[in-house]
Amino acid sequence: MTTPLRIGVLGSGNGSNCEAIMEACDRGVIPGAVTVVLSDHADAFILERARHRGIPAAFIGQSQFKTKLEPELEQHLVRLLQEAQVGLVALAGYMRVVKRPLLHAFAGRIINVHPSLLPSFPGLKSWEQALNHGVKVTGVTVHFVNEGVDTGPIILQEAVPILPGDTAESLHQRIHAVEHRLFPEAIRLFAANRLRISGRRVDVTS
Amino acid sequence: MTTPLRIGVLGSGNGSNCEAIMEACDRGVIPGAVTVVLSDHADAFILERARHRGIPAAFIGQSQFKTKLEPELEQHLVRLLQEAQVGLVALAGYMRVVKRPLLHAFAGRIINVHPSLLPSFPGLKSWEQALNHGVKVTGVTVHFVNEGVDTGPIILQEAVPILPGDTAESLHQRIHAVEHRLFPEAIRLFAANRLRISGRRVDVTS
Repeated sequence: MTTPLRIGVLGSGNGSNCEAIMEACDRGVIPGAVTVVLSDHADAFILERARHRGIPAAFIGQSQFKTKLEPELEQHLVRLLQEAQVGLVALAGYMRVVKRPLLHAFAGRIINVHPSLLPSFPGLKSWEQALNHGVKVTGVTVHFVNEGVDTGPIILQEAVPILPGDTAESLHQRIHAVEHRLFPEAIRLFAANRLRISGRRVDVTS
Repeated sequence: MTTPLRIGVLGSGNGSNCEAIMEACDRGVIPGAVTVVLSDHADAFILERARHRGIPAAFIGQSQFKTKLEPELEQHLVRLLQEAQVGLVALAGYMRVVKRPLLHAFAGRIINVHPSLLPSFPGLKSWEQALNHGVKVTGVTVHFVNEGVDTGPIILQEAVPILPGDTAESLHQRIHAVEHRLFPEAIRLFAANRLRISGRRVDVTS
C-alpha cells in the first residue's frame, strides 16, 4: 500500500531513541527503515548502534559552533540525507538548533522528541526545569520542527507524573521510557500518511 | 485532632468549584467548613449557592477596575474574611489579580484552581489557548497564590487529554470535572496540615 519510509536519524549522544526507532522498523511496527544515521560528534554511541545493525553511519564534520551548524556544514548534512533518499528526518537527541538549509530541504518532514509537555520547559534539561519549577506532571512531546526552539506543531504528547522523592535521574529515566514508545508511534503515523498539519494543529486521521 | 478549617471562598461567576468544596465539607472529606462566600459581582450565582446552604454570602462592592480591586476595596474584602475568621481563602473562578492587601493578610493561605497544566497557558481561557496551541495534553493545576499571575507553588496537577474533535466547550467540561475533584482534594490536604512549601516546591506529607 504505502511505500516504505526511508528515515534519516540525527543524534548527538547515546542514541537510545534511535535504537527504539530501528527496533520498531525491524519489528514492522513502522512501515519503513532507518537508512542513515548522522552525528555531530565523531564518537557518539548512536553511530555505533547504527553500524552494529549494518546501517550507514557518519560523523558530519567538525563545527565551530556549539548550538548550531555553520550553513556550509548543515548543507553538507542535507546532501548526506538526500543521498540516502530519506523521506523523514528524526532528531533523536540532536543538540543543535536546526537552521534554514535543513528546514528548507525537508520542510514538514523533520520531527523531534522533547522531554516535557511543551510549551512548558523548552530548551535543555527539561526534566530538571520541571523539578525546579515544582510541577506535579510533566511528560513527552513529539513535534514537527520549525525555525523556533521546540515550538513546532505537536504530533503526540503523553503525561509523566512526578513522584514524591523523584530525583532528576529517576524522573529522566521514566521520561526516556515514554520517549522510546511515543517517538516510534509518531513515526509510524507519519509513515502511514496519517498526520495532517493545519496551522499549529496536527490531526491524526484514522 | 485538627481544628476544623474555616474556608472563605471568592468567586466571580457560577461557583461550581465552590459547590464542590461545600459538598466535600458536608461529606466530611474536608475537615472544615465554608464560612463565607464573597463575590465581586452582585448577581454571581456563587452567592446563590452559598445562601441556599445557609452560608453567609456577600457582594464586596463595586470596583472601578476590571482585573483587580482598588486597595481600599481589597482591604474591605480582607476585613470580611477576617471577620469570618477564615484560615484559608479559596479562589473559585475569581477573575481578578490578587494584590498586596489580601496577599499580606493571608500569606501562604490563598489557593487557586487553574484550568491548565501550569506553567503552560496562564491567564484567561486556558482551554482555548491549549486548543489553539495544538497541545495533545492539558490539565488542571491547584496552586498557592503569589504576586504573579498563576505562578505560585503548585500543590496538585492532573493531566486531561485533548481528544479528536474536541471543541472549546467539550474540553472545558472535562477540565471542569477534574477541577471539582482536584480542588477539594488540595483543600483536604491543606486542612490536614499535610502541605509543606519549600521554595517553588510543595511536598505532600503522609
